[in-house]
Amino acid sequence: MSGGEQGGGVGAKRWIIGVDIGGTNVSVGVLPVDGGHPLARRTLPTEPQRGAQFVVDRVVRMIEEAMREVLDSNGGERSDFAGVGIGSPGPLNRKTGTVLNTPNLGWRNFPLRDLIANAIGLPATLDNDANCATYGEWWMGAGRDVKTLVGLTLGTGIGGGIVLDGEIFHGVSDAAGEIGHMTIDLTGRRCKCGNYGCLEAYASGPAIAARAVEGIERGAESMMVAMVDGQLDRITAATVYEAVVGEDAFANEIMRETVTFLGSGIANIINILNPGAIVITGGVTRAGDHLFVPLRAEVRRRAFRSAEEACKILPAALPETAGLIGAAGVFKKEVFGSLGRA
Amino acid sequence: MSGGEQGGGVGAKRWIIGVDIGGTNVSVGVLPVDGGHPLARRTLPTEPQRGAQFVVDRVVRMIEEAMREVLDSNGGERSDFAGVGIGSPGPLNRKTGTVLNTPNLGWRNFPLRDLIANAIGLPATLDNDANCATYGEWWMGAGRDVKTLVGLTLGTGIGGGIVLDGEIFHGVSDAAGEIGHMTIDLTGRRCKCGNYGCLEAYASGPAIAARAVEGIERGAESMMVAMVDGQLDRITAATVYEAVVGEDAFANEIMRETVTFLGSGIANIINILNPGAIVITGGVTRAGDHLFVPLRAEVRRRAFRSAEEACKILPAALPETAGLIGAAGVFKKEVFGSLGRA
Repeated sequence: MSGGEQGGGVGAKRWIIGVDIGGTNVSVGVLPVDGGHPLARRTLPTEPQRGAQFVVDRVVRMIEEAMREVLDSNGGERSDFAGVGIGSPGPLNRKTGTVLNTPNLGWRNFPLRDLIANAIGLPATLDNDANCATYGEWWMGAGRDVKTLVGLTLGTGIGGGIVLDGEIFHGVSDAAGEIGHMTIDLTGRRCKCGNYGCLEAYASGPAIAARAVEGIERGAESMMVAMVDGQLDRITAATVYEAVVGEDAFANEIMRETVTFLGSGIANIINILNPGAIVITGGVTRAGDHLFVPLRAEVRRRAFRSAEEACKILPAALPETAGLIGAAGVFKKEVFGSLGRA
Repeated sequence: MSGGEQGGGVGAKRWIIGVDIGGTNVSVGVLPVDGGHPLARRTLPTEPQRGAQFVVDRVVRMIEEAMREVLDSNGGERSDFAGVGIGSPGPLNRKTGTVLNTPNLGWRNFPLRDLIANAIGLPATLDNDANCATYGEWWMGAGRDVKTLVGLTLGTGIGGGIVLDGEIFHGVSDAAGEIGHMTIDLTGRRCKCGNYGCLEAYASGPAIAARAVEGIERGAESMMVAMVDGQLDRITAATVYEAVVGEDAFANEIMRETVTFLGSGIANIINILNPGAIVITGGVTRAGDHLFVPLRAEVRRRAFRSAEEACKILPAALPETAGLIGAAGVFKKEVFGSLGRA
């Protein structure tokens, strides 16, 4: 943690600001230090193509607005804010508060934490977005009654976060949790990361869509063709989930395959880490029981029974806010020593 | 921990007994509480087919002999021994000191810890053998200068242990670390555990031998045929390593495949846990640079750079003694609070 001034003792503080910066959107909210869900929430597009300074200015303005809203509704003064917890895509260096390299945002060695801390005049912390989302689910969401939790975010990529005994697990160089880049098929599909057969190459949103398009191009019949007016490049993972709910046979086949891939990856996590829960975030959870019932069965077939029985597989409880809640949690843990989870 | 009596204060104790029970051999040694390598070491075959009580009696006799040897050489008295750390194949329940189920030994719900503790009259602890071996390498072996370490034991099966920041990581139900049962090829070879495509199904000793035999049966030429006088069922992983060193082309192909399988599994561990070292134990390390040079290259191709660069891949430094050292370490940690690693 670094940057900004911290007026008054920690005990006097009432609020922590949480910031979740993603490739698509930025979300900001204010958490009561004493517990409770975020207030004064706002979300705007990140628009990274407008440059790093634009994004920082936008985040700073959102924070200022959220602070003003909280003070207008609750009274008090600016010194009631303890500081800012920031979640950002990585890899990053938590000690220096620097984002090392994010292809999605185009940042390299970018001192994100201190730019925000200095602009607001409050101390700040920085952690990885997937770690923050997992920590938020552990603190207030689907994992709030387990000690050890793995979070999987299925979107454009597959992000992962690991919380062990209530602490985000970072590994020796802040690089732990790259669960999406676990090889499940060592001679399989090439992944963007350079490896072959990564979970992400099969079960990310674009990978699910690509497998559907490939099947249709090979002659599979599906309502998805009509859903996109024959323009196959408009098929997304959401198209597949809608067709699954519409009982399209081919979309269900794609979903069954997705379950096999995800089930293999989750069974690996269970065999290695023996967590109390796996929490899944992302559009794929919209498939509901079409996903979770066969997924649990696939995991049961593949994982050791004593580890499998100890692990719940759950949809995220806070898909919109876990990231900013967890980012604020990282700040709270660092400054106050504990999250005070029940 | 439980069982036995503990005479005198912890401060007065000079020795801890370490016990490593395996499917083939039992090893016992005595560690100085103040640090240093094991004394009075002895190893005997386990002979599990003679029954659980036979194994317990044998272990107890070995402990008594080792204690006597230490007192004969160093003076002192029986009350100088703090207790016994036991490593055993799992799954097990550390709290009750019970081995739940070991196919290799034929034990089910067997109260191993207290049987030994009561027979010796000293307190005892119980942990998984692969955890103990990894902990021993972390404490005094190849991992003694890293905080976070993953151990892989390549033998009849593939055992795994995880040490995070100096603590054995057990997961929520003592089942963490089953690294050998990570799926690397989700439609691949059936594993003994019931899953398909586990690392163990490709890179354990019997799996390496089976792949060699299958290749020869399909017509591959190899010096291995002559090495076993044409009796292919006598080919073991050791036969393959010897033929590799003898520059047998087919054996080298089997080794290259083994490297691909192991490299995929190790890259997964690195991407998920970002450890400071991976320590490999077992006969396969006899292949030396034939293994480690291409293995490092395969891992580099598959893992994230920042995690890969932070991780050493090393042969075990204490292949004979890490298990009993780690078992004694578990006892020391529990009773004395710290291992006092430099």
